[in-house]
Amino acid sequence: MKRKNPAPPTTSNIHAPLLTAIRTLIPLSEAEEEIVCQLFKEKHYKKGSFFLAENEICRQAAFVISGFMRYYINDDGEEKTYGFAKPFNFACNYESFVPQNPSSQIIQALEDCVLLTISYDDLLRFYEQVRYGDRFGRLVIEQVFIQTLKDRNSFYTDSPEGRYEQFIREHKDLLQQISQYHIASFVGIKPQSLSRIRKRLARN
Amino acid sequence: MKRKNPAPPTTSNIHAPLLTAIRTLIPLSEAEEEIVCQLFKEKHYKKGSFFLAENEICRQAAFVISGFMRYYINDDGEEKTYGFAKPFNFACNYESFVPQNPSSQIIQALEDCVLLTISYDDLLRFYEQVRYGDRFGRLVIEQVFIQTLKDRNSFYTDSPEGRYEQFIREHKDLLQQISQYHIASFVGIKPQSLSRIRKRLARN
Repeated sequence: MKRKNPAPPTTSNIHAPLLTAIRTLIPLSEAEEEIVCQLFKEKHYKKGSFFLAENEICRQAAFVISGFMRYYINDDGEEKTYGFAKPFNFACNYESFVPQNPSSQIIQALEDCVLLTISYDDLLRFYEQVRYGDRFGRLVIEQVFIQTLKDRNSFYTDSPEGRYEQFIREHKDLLQQISQYHIASFVGIKPQSLSRIRKRLARN
Repeated sequence: MKRKNPAPPTTSNIHAPLLTAIRTLIPLSEAEEEIVCQLFKEKHYKKGSFFLAENEICRQAAFVISGFMRYYINDDGEEKTYGFAKPFNFACNYESFVPQNPSSQIIQALEDCVLLTISYDDLLRFYEQVRYGDRFGRLVIEQVFIQTLKDRNSFYTDSPEGRYEQFIREHKDLLQQISQYHIASFVGIKPQSLSRIRKRLARN
């Protein structure tokens, strides 16, 4: 399902978007860029394969280079999609990654994906070896925490229409690529109800 | 409702438990201890008063020295208690504090409280001036994030008995001080149902 790229760990083109993303939050010296390139390894996931399977411990975080993935849970046989990881986003299940506990959440590639992944231990090395590494970690988890709470609240307080409109706002770029089935699951309704909502919105 | 203590900002007895709590996560030099004592200010909240009122922006985080507080939301007039802040715990609503947005959550003193509080801007100073300040921030928010998700999941997946037993495990020290009304709210049931659960558990 996945294979490591054997390329030597030097600053490469593939790491450029990651370095840019990190530099929006903290400064990076040239030596630190080199560390980032060594710690984040290129991995490929085929469409349909699992970056994180159910009950597996999340042992790595990823930066998406191409393709996209969905987050979902298996609720008594019913799949509930609650988020997407797109190019130039980080992907991780902190709930499993931080305490290194088995994950109830699943992260699945919906297209062939190229990721830059970092293991739990290598992330600790990143925090240790990069001057502002802990700041980067703090800022990322702050964003993820706030977004997670927002998403969960939305599930209980927003209408399906509201959630569909939010999906369009946040994922316009994925609209053509994600199936109606997965969008309906994210909105929290059946595909036929989503179809009715889309027709109603198209009329207005 | 609250008043500042005008004591000079030097290492004082009142800051000792806070320094101990910080030192369990990161090393602190003597100069950094001095910074912590200057940035965390003593404040007193009377029983019933609000550390964070509804729709207010959470502009400070606190370390509880004495007394305790509850976290709750006002759900269409019904109060839903979802957590407690006890001595030597940090208290903050990150969901409001990090983005500096109005809070839907409320933090109320259930006893007279002595707190050491730090403003949002002073916390950024702490991150800047303390060598491992960002690491401390990262580790605390990691813990809060995981605990928040655990608490929320528990509300949807655990039985009232299970939640009551969890409350007893985690807050044995508060059992005599917290009213049955607030415990029932935390468990997610009416006080009379809690009374039945307690009788059943006492029999077993």
